[in-house]
Amino acid sequence: MGLTLAQLASHLGCEFDGDASCLISGVATLVDATSGDLSFLVSSKYRADLAATQASVVVMADQNRRAYAGNVLIAKDPYLTYARAAQLFYPERRHEGGVHPAAVVDPTAQIDAAAWVDALCVIGPEVVVGANAQIGAGCILDRDITIGRDCRLLANVTIHGHASLGERCVIQPGVVIGSDGFGYANDQGKWVKIPQVGGVILGDDVEVGANTTIDRGALSDTIIGNGVILDNQVQIAHNVHIGEQTAIAGCTGVAGSTHIGKRCAIGGHVGIVGHLTIADGVHVSAKTFVSQSIDKAGFYSSGTPIELNARWRKNFVRMKQLDEMARRIKTLEKMVHKLSNDV
Amino acid sequence: MGLTLAQLASHLGCEFDGDASCLISGVATLVDATSGDLSFLVSSKYRADLAATQASVVVMADQNRRAYAGNVLIAKDPYLTYARAAQLFYPERRHEGGVHPAAVVDPTAQIDAAAWVDALCVIGPEVVVGANAQIGAGCILDRDITIGRDCRLLANVTIHGHASLGERCVIQPGVVIGSDGFGYANDQGKWVKIPQVGGVILGDDVEVGANTTIDRGALSDTIIGNGVILDNQVQIAHNVHIGEQTAIAGCTGVAGSTHIGKRCAIGGHVGIVGHLTIADGVHVSAKTFVSQSIDKAGFYSSGTPIELNARWRKNFVRMKQLDEMARRIKTLEKMVHKLSNDV
Amino acid sequence: MGLTLAQLASHLGCEFDGDASCLISGVATLVDATSGDLSFLVSSKYRADLAATQASVVVMADQNRRAYAGNVLIAKDPYLTYARAAQLFYPERRHEGGVHPAAVVDPTAQIDAAAWVDALCVIGPEVVVGANAQIGAGCILDRDITIGRDCRLLANVTIHGHASLGERCVIQPGVVIGSDGFGYANDQGKWVKIPQVGGVILGDDVEVGANTTIDRGALSDTIIGNGVILDNQVQIAHNVHIGEQTAIAGCTGVAGSTHIGKRCAIGGHVGIVGHLTIADGVHVSAKTFVSQSIDKAGFYSSGTPIELNARWRKNFVRMKQLDEMARRIKTLEKMVHKLSNDV
Repeated sequence: MGLTLAQLASHLGCEFDGDASCLISGVATLVDATSGDLSFLVSSKYRADLAATQASVVVMADQNRRAYAGNVLIAKDPYLTYARAAQLFYPERRHEGGVHPAAVVDPTAQIDAAAWVDALCVIGPEVVVGANAQIGAGCILDRDITIGRDCRLLANVTIHGHASLGERCVIQPGVVIGSDGFGYANDQGKWVKIPQVGGVILGDDVEVGANTTIDRGALSDTIIGNGVILDNQVQIAHNVHIGEQTAIAGCTGVAGSTHIGKRCAIGGHVGIVGHLTIADGVHVSAKTFVSQSIDKAGFYSSGTPIELNARWRKNFVRMKQLDEMARRIKTLEKMVHKLSNDV
Repeated sequence: MGLTLAQLASHLGCEFDGDASCLISGVATLVDATSGDLSFLVSSKYRADLAATQASVVVMADQNRRAYAGNVLIAKDPYLTYARAAQLFYPERRHEGGVHPAAVVDPTAQIDAAAWVDALCVIGPEVVVGANAQIGAGCILDRDITIGRDCRLLANVTIHGHASLGERCVIQPGVVIGSDGFGYANDQGKWVKIPQVGGVILGDDVEVGANTTIDRGALSDTIIGNGVILDNQVQIAHNVHIGEQTAIAGCTGVAGSTHIGKRCAIGGHVGIVGHLTIADGVHVSAKTFVSQSIDKAGFYSSGTPIELNARWRKNFVRMKQLDEMARRIKTLEKMVHKLSNDV
Repeated sequence: MGLTLAQLASHLGCEFDGDASCLISGVATLVDATSGDLSFLVSSKYRADLAATQASVVVMADQNRRAYAGNVLIAKDPYLTYARAAQLFYPERRHEGGVHPAAVVDPTAQIDAAAWVDALCVIGPEVVVGANAQIGAGCILDRDITIGRDCRLLANVTIHGHASLGERCVIQPGVVIGSDGFGYANDQGKWVKIPQVGGVILGDDVEVGANTTIDRGALSDTIIGNGVILDNQVQIAHNVHIGEQTAIAGCTGVAGSTHIGKRCAIGGHVGIVGHLTIADGVHVSAKTFVSQSIDKAGFYSSGTPIELNARWRKNFVRMKQLDEMARRIKTLEKMVHKLSNDV
């Protein structure tokens, strides 16, 4: 698909500067762009790339337009405008409605005529698949699952636990939704499984990254709010609630019954213990250990700095002596103050 | 299924207090329970919920019974009794014996007549599936795999590496058992793969969470003891041994050849390095780095506290100065003692 | 397959000492070896096992040969020689060329006549599978994917995103290659998905562990160099570059656009933030948080020591006081120096 610069500016609601009839048909980085590509400048550290770019148009903020002689789209938020342009040039591939002959569909499943079920899917009893939903190859929807309209399950997604997905959710390959939570009682040293009978509810516009897992609730439901985005290999335990538009980066784990607020941004490889409450608007940096509830928006961190191993070993040993060091400082302070008075 | 309170008490081996004929047919939290539900009180912090609950009966310890006017089941361990009650009301769904016509089964596989193999499974040569085992949709059992009686593989489980599962194991979706261990020699800067020819042995009553991976041994076997419970996204490397009834929470990784004792409880996001020995009865808190063997039962931890990022940055910088700080304290101590003597 | 000791020595390019006609047909540890097995001594801590081994031949360095009366293969690097011997005795199982009747193959896919596509695979449009490649059961190759000759995809592997694999790659079960990267712009508090249109390029001889995920690039490609080995549950984000022969252990995550050099060794459970550059030859110990670029080869670490929880709690509290402690030490130093001058 190609658009003239003038058409594109109109679609994106931007001003432009340059050749209105210039044809744009794709998106690329400043470095990789060739004729026909739109590119974007989001940080001044890419100014050198700007000078050399072959892009047909560059999206940038108003204050940068004088730095560039080529065609320009002016945007308040160039990154957002680039996202909108990319959505225009690379629309999601959608298959027309139907069921692949090599899918296995239970007669009680209700598949909308405009939904697509690809090869080697298993669609179990009482599953409901909404209009225009795309169920990719190898997906398994166990039983009593609801998939909202316009959802896309890419491939090899497994859904159990009476899960319900809202509209327009995107589920990457290898995701498991509705697996049993890690719930056991102990009987004289032996684990006794607690049946996990709650469900999983995903709101609208939820995106779930590859090989991420979301457990069903033990009794009540695990709840993922509208617009939540989860990266790859995230683990969401039973009865977790995640508020609207919260983002969680890769390899992060959230233990059972923790409630995370709206519009939070949780970095990668973060561990959040169970039964906590995290307020709206909390940002947590990568690899932090969230060991307590956070009742106020803000940016939080934990962790130790990377060093050459030889130096780290010396500091590492001292971490076990911190309490003792603090006591010795206190003793020194007392002695020195006494000495100061004596002298 | 419904039971009277008297029948339920008899099944669970509990005393009860209240209306013997009251019908119970499900389990719910104190807050969500409605008529017909059993609920439970495990911590005094839920006393407020107890007052308002609509549950038909509440399981609680003897010392709490006077706090509640409704029907009561008296239990030494209310959580365990709740687990047993939930097992009663929510028995596992089991399919009658047979093989789905859309499964692919090698003629040399031995599937017990009372086992169920669901759609789009691949059962390879010399695989043995025991009585009443349930192989969910999309599972792949490569070759020479043994699945004990009453096992349940939920869906999309992949088993390679001559693995053997005991009886009553439960394997959640996306699990990989018997993948190659991470074993390579180095030849002048190039990695040379070491064939992984050991197996994996899971005992009886092992539970494995969604997308968890368990590698086959390099030469001898990877061994998971009876009653071990592994949460989601746990990684067990080659030749690891895990003792009976040990529990490992989500996202934890255990490196090669480490032996973990019996009845250990390892938190989530823990990293355990290779070739260690962990004693029986060791508890490790979430996100701990287990960098050395542990020869004695106890509760172990590592990690740093979460803080506002601005404060953390200040302390973070100091972590690189710990050894220097310790030396400066020592120097000060010498000087101060000398001064004290001099004055 | 059996070889005489003389034949084996010739194959491996080693000297031997002992019975030239002794038959060897397998590999085992010193402890488990029985007659017919080759074993190996790589560390002096296994000397006790050497004395008792039933192995028919032991690979060892020249300086150890006098310690053992049995048959010996002399190797500069006994571990490497063991790897080569194991490859000899346990060649990879390869299926003859063809497509299983229960695979679903698009008519535009090009499968080499000498490649094997197993049951319940889905091979999409314009996929190319090279000679002798082995596509295991349940693999899904979406569209426009290239699999080089001699690659092995074990089972349940999902490949999207126009990925291209070089020759002889080994992909363990549950791996996802070419999933969408975690790319979103924010529009007044709502996430807007950025279409991920880059690809993934794996070089030759790349090995990818079970349930590892590798995202496609946002615009340009994610690139994994020749001979890279990735363990289980590793997460590689969009636009990461990994240099040749680098090894990454289990559960490690690499955030977007980070470039890792050649011949690096990254431990397990390491978190590497985005947009960093890591030099060639960098080693990072397990569970380290790589929060900044590393411009020089060396061994790097971060993290805190494991302790009994009761002691750890005391030190843990002090970590929040480090900056204050450092300031108090400085104040003490000033006071003590003043006192020393005064006395």
